[in-house]
Amino acid sequence: MIVILKEKSEERQLNHLTEWLKEQGISLHMTKGLHQSILGLIGDTSKLDINLLKQMDIVEDVKRVQEPFKNANRKFHPLDTVIPIGNTVIGGGSMTVIAGPCSVESEEQIITVAESVKGSGAQLLRGGAFKPRTSPYAFQGLRNEGIRLLLEAKKATGLPIVTEIMDLSQLELFDEVDVIQVGARTMQNFELLKQLGHLSKPILLKRGLANTYQELLMSAEYIMASGNENVILCERGIRTFETYTRNTLDISAIPVLKNLSHLPVIIDPSHAAGAARFVPSLSMAAIAAGADGLIIEVHNDPQHALCDGVQSLTMEDFEKLMKHLTVIKNAQTACLED
Amino acid sequence: MIVILKEKSEERQLNHLTEWLKEQGISLHMTKGLHQSILGLIGDTSKLDINLLKQMDIVEDVKRVQEPFKNANRKFHPLDTVIPIGNTVIGGGSMTVIAGPCSVESEEQIITVAESVKGSGAQLLRGGAFKPRTSPYAFQGLRNEGIRLLLEAKKATGLPIVTEIMDLSQLELFDEVDVIQVGARTMQNFELLKQLGHLSKPILLKRGLANTYQELLMSAEYIMASGNENVILCERGIRTFETYTRNTLDISAIPVLKNLSHLPVIIDPSHAAGAARFVPSLSMAAIAAGADGLIIEVHNDPQHALCDGVQSLTMEDFEKLMKHLTVIKNAQTACLED
Amino acid sequence: MIVILKEKSEERQLNHLTEWLKEQGISLHMTKGLHQSILGLIGDTSKLDINLLKQMDIVEDVKRVQEPFKNANRKFHPLDTVIPIGNTVIGGGSMTVIAGPCSVESEEQIITVAESVKGSGAQLLRGGAFKPRTSPYAFQGLRNEGIRLLLEAKKATGLPIVTEIMDLSQLELFDEVDVIQVGARTMQNFELLKQLGHLSKPILLKRGLANTYQELLMSAEYIMASGNENVILCERGIRTFETYTRNTLDISAIPVLKNLSHLPVIIDPSHAAGAARFVPSLSMAAIAAGADGLIIEVHNDPQHALCDGVQSLTMEDFEKLMKHLTVIKNAQTACLED
Amino acid sequence: MIVILKEKSEERQLNHLTEWLKEQGISLHMTKGLHQSILGLIGDTSKLDINLLKQMDIVEDVKRVQEPFKNANRKFHPLDTVIPIGNTVIGGGSMTVIAGPCSVESEEQIITVAESVKGSGAQLLRGGAFKPRTSPYAFQGLRNEGIRLLLEAKKATGLPIVTEIMDLSQLELFDEVDVIQVGARTMQNFELLKQLGHLSKPILLKRGLANTYQELLMSAEYIMASGNENVILCERGIRTFETYTRNTLDISAIPVLKNLSHLPVIIDPSHAAGAARFVPSLSMAAIAAGADGLIIEVHNDPQHALCDGVQSLTMEDFEKLMKHLTVIKNAQTACLED
Repeated sequence: MIVILKEKSEERQLNHLTEWLKEQGISLHMTKGLHQSILGLIGDTSKLDINLLKQMDIVEDVKRVQEPFKNANRKFHPLDTVIPIGNTVIGGGSMTVIAGPCSVESEEQIITVAESVKGSGAQLLRGGAFKPRTSPYAFQGLRNEGIRLLLEAKKATGLPIVTEIMDLSQLELFDEVDVIQVGARTMQNFELLKQLGHLSKPILLKRGLANTYQELLMSAEYIMASGNENVILCERGIRTFETYTRNTLDISAIPVLKNLSHLPVIIDPSHAAGAARFVPSLSMAAIAAGADGLIIEVHNDPQHALCDGVQSLTMEDFEKLMKHLTVIKNAQTACLED
Repeated sequence: MIVILKEKSEERQLNHLTEWLKEQGISLHMTKGLHQSILGLIGDTSKLDINLLKQMDIVEDVKRVQEPFKNANRKFHPLDTVIPIGNTVIGGGSMTVIAGPCSVESEEQIITVAESVKGSGAQLLRGGAFKPRTSPYAFQGLRNEGIRLLLEAKKATGLPIVTEIMDLSQLELFDEVDVIQVGARTMQNFELLKQLGHLSKPILLKRGLANTYQELLMSAEYIMASGNENVILCERGIRTFETYTRNTLDISAIPVLKNLSHLPVIIDPSHAAGAARFVPSLSMAAIAAGADGLIIEVHNDPQHALCDGVQSLTMEDFEKLMKHLTVIKNAQTACLED
Repeated sequence: MIVILKEKSEERQLNHLTEWLKEQGISLHMTKGLHQSILGLIGDTSKLDINLLKQMDIVEDVKRVQEPFKNANRKFHPLDTVIPIGNTVIGGGSMTVIAGPCSVESEEQIITVAESVKGSGAQLLRGGAFKPRTSPYAFQGLRNEGIRLLLEAKKATGLPIVTEIMDLSQLELFDEVDVIQVGARTMQNFELLKQLGHLSKPILLKRGLANTYQELLMSAEYIMASGNENVILCERGIRTFETYTRNTLDISAIPVLKNLSHLPVIIDPSHAAGAARFVPSLSMAAIAAGADGLIIEVHNDPQHALCDGVQSLTMEDFEKLMKHLTVIKNAQTACLED
Repeated sequence: MIVILKEKSEERQLNHLTEWLKEQGISLHMTKGLHQSILGLIGDTSKLDINLLKQMDIVEDVKRVQEPFKNANRKFHPLDTVIPIGNTVIGGGSMTVIAGPCSVESEEQIITVAESVKGSGAQLLRGGAFKPRTSPYAFQGLRNEGIRLLLEAKKATGLPIVTEIMDLSQLELFDEVDVIQVGARTMQNFELLKQLGHLSKPILLKRGLANTYQELLMSAEYIMASGNENVILCERGIRTFETYTRNTLDISAIPVLKNLSHLPVIIDPSHAAGAARFVPSLSMAAIAAGADGLIIEVHNDPQHALCDGVQSLTMEDFEKLMKHLTVIKNAQTACLED
């Protein structure tokens, strides 16, 4: 960490700062410039609150050299994290596909979709029980009943299930859920993250609409700092000035996050695009760029879906896409081995 | 609402759509264009889920004419909402100032600040007990104890208190809190909003970092649809490409939100600027633009604050600012009366 | 186009609007709603200025049904545009790679790079002569001499050349240049676009940092409306709140632009990433998503480049990447043929 | 400037870097950390190209301490720049209002508006002759004839005129123009900026839609480095995810730019809002925040304007606004003197 001092800083103030840092096990090294002096901080600064330094009278600015996250940092864990889920894994060069409807609507619907996506090669089933909707007047999900139906679909197909939690009060209903999803709007619900850190099951953590890579990793750090290292990062599109697509898929998140962290990275092309016709291109791009997997919305009857039908693939289109993804994945693997 | 049909749409599909709309009390009027036909929907469409229409096979696009919110809509409530809190009010031409530290740190601190800001003219006291922090290693607030200390400060000064809730599980601790603040990261925690709708006390609802005016009003609608009409809207800066300031204060939110809604609109210049030296300019701008109030961070010793000291005014600077704000407010009122 | 009328609109005003539209060959169809009436406009509205309608007293809002571009619109030109350049083409399923240094630095440098990238499979040579630099104190390019050296490299290798124009006054120097590049900062230099429309040579039009798909297509329309249909669209990253990468590559631009337009779409992964280590992933993603080609920065000695060395591939890394891209392209083609 | 070295850096590489910096008059001071070492650069780094350092093999990252602009920097010019124009000035605590139509349409129109805004207290007349329009099919301005008519209006009223240049080729037509405006889309047309630097007349430089404060100041630096110090900075709204207003007015630009630079800062509320009804609030906010002036669109008949009528004030509304602005300005001045 580097502290840039203001032009006029008194000896007394500097001593105060030096003392404060020493108490936290950090030593200092000063460089005097023409206009300004800078201090190099030597020691473990990853847990130092940068703002406590910035607010001091003699400090002009503070810049980080070391990342503020440790558990999620590849520097300290060079090998890819590989997370086992049922008979499959996520991470480490796999291509794990999670598929299913935006929301669970009925037993028949969820079992039909589950069997179909399993037949097409999906390894996990997704489905919304608790649905965060912008409008209070929109369908809010089947809630408890939705989770029960997902478990029925799991029994029928053997597919582990992934579903979203909206609030801590729902946590006990997720006992038998295989992967708990934290949605984009909930990425910084820190009370929830802390509690999820006390579980051992995998957490699928989606990037918020306007959150940086670093903030996403800090939210993963919340979960990991409480003891749960099974975090899956998910890019699902960010909010930009472009409104033609629902969000802007930030494809660079794949190489960047894999560079900064050892955690698996998957892509949600459905929410990014907001339109089924763009999902295949984005899915193929994600696999070619090295994503560890995808989470894709698939519906047995998109025209009559209770939620997000416009971005859901039909079961037939998903089957075709899975074949193509396998071809791209093989090509990508061949390149890596080269 | 206007539905734009695809070029080739079959009679059968159109009948299906017409039936579906009729069931919801909406009738149709068709305009045939050269390439495409459009349907005008006649009836109350404010509660219609626009996505259910978009996903239909014959539909190319859907555009709203009427806003999707009703309770928060000025069209249906032309007069300004004025919310009484203790001996003061927010809304309807008032200038209500909420001031206090980012976080409650000790009894001495919060009472010192409370007495000082009261003396300078603030009508409400703010202070964080539960603190949403990006890093799990940063100070997380005094929590329950923080609320207790705020209530002590209220007892000492008579100032009603405003503090932030992070999660539904904390709600019972807010029984004696005068105004519950919903932070930017929590604006779309819909489970929480619904429960806050069952209270009668005022809710200070902050706009999320990347949320539109409409989404903010839809979150207000969640609270109001459950029965609580005492919602105060707060603009606190949005996230843009500019990183010199912590966020970008969207000053236009004032005239726009007051145009769309009857709810009071206040500004948080401290979080927008992220630096105390820019707070006075932004505060004066907000009052001149017609804001109903401000929420400002003030600390007795910003250099040693446990949180956000860099953006906190000293008590002396706040006193000076209050005098200036009164001058601007008087000028603004004189203009309105003209 | 749909015009939404204000609640209270007088007969007289409506007649005025009807007359004005009739003069432009457009007829009207009205739908009366509960609160508001809407007008459907029938006729060719692609060249109608939407703002002239919006400013009328009785108009609340105007919404487009038809896109405001014609020449660039796939609806009117369903087949892909394929542009011949020297012995190669861009568009229609090709994978055309343009490679070379950020800026031309010397005859030896440009010929060394040109021979190397040709050997690796690039079909065109890029190199900057006129360089738009944020700082007046940074290297501004070799200018006229840079173009002369590019032509030497073309003579030596047979590769057609692509280089950027910054201002109309430079146009006569581009006589022998094969493809004229319009940079992101110049995308809305309409005076320049009009003049480029009077040429017949291909124009590589880069999307501006904060320009929508529609604005990019309107800039293409400027060139095409003046008679030059050889426009290549290029996505090179947009500006968002995320600053870890230089820009955010909007990979969805590929399927979206190819859906809206018949023009070829290429990707610039170098400027998007701003770091050489992320270029291979983004390049592979772009080809998998269906891009018609890539423009990649390659330098013989990135550490000593006069410009953008940090994002330039070495010649060796480029050679390796080209092999991988061919593998991905073959996989992508196999999928399309399926 | 601070250079952060990679973990493994060889002696030989470090010597190379030291030599290279010495040649540019810069000396070094090293701090060895636990994981990484950092170099403090001592000397004038304002003209050093940061990217040339970043691309070196041993360099992990580079961070600026000193701003990269000198002429525009308040650190080196503590006093406000005050620019005389005709009988008025811009800068240094003045409130200078520039008003007039989006585009010049006829002699009668421009003289009518000029006389009216002069009567209301405007000190300069604006009017577009060359109009940058997104669509090639929209009205492009009266061009040469537009400038002639502006000069007629100047003769009739004595008001100095401000009009926009789109391209270097138009420069000779601007001989008698008092203030040359560089529009948002042209802010980084560096060829044009260099030439404007050879004039002595004031340049009104608008911030680009997605340009940072620093980029705006670097564009000012282009003009000033060529010798013209009469630059007026103008904030006119930036592009964000919010589309309800045409752009998002970044009101913080006023205190920030005045903090970083000595140049005058004015606000364009018309383009920011995109709707006349929001212009008064934004104008009052700008003056309260300390802007040196405003540039406002005023039209004699907004409903029939050839361009941007929707955001133009009527002459009557402008007259009323000017009275209010004077009240706010007086209040703001009283505060400053306090």
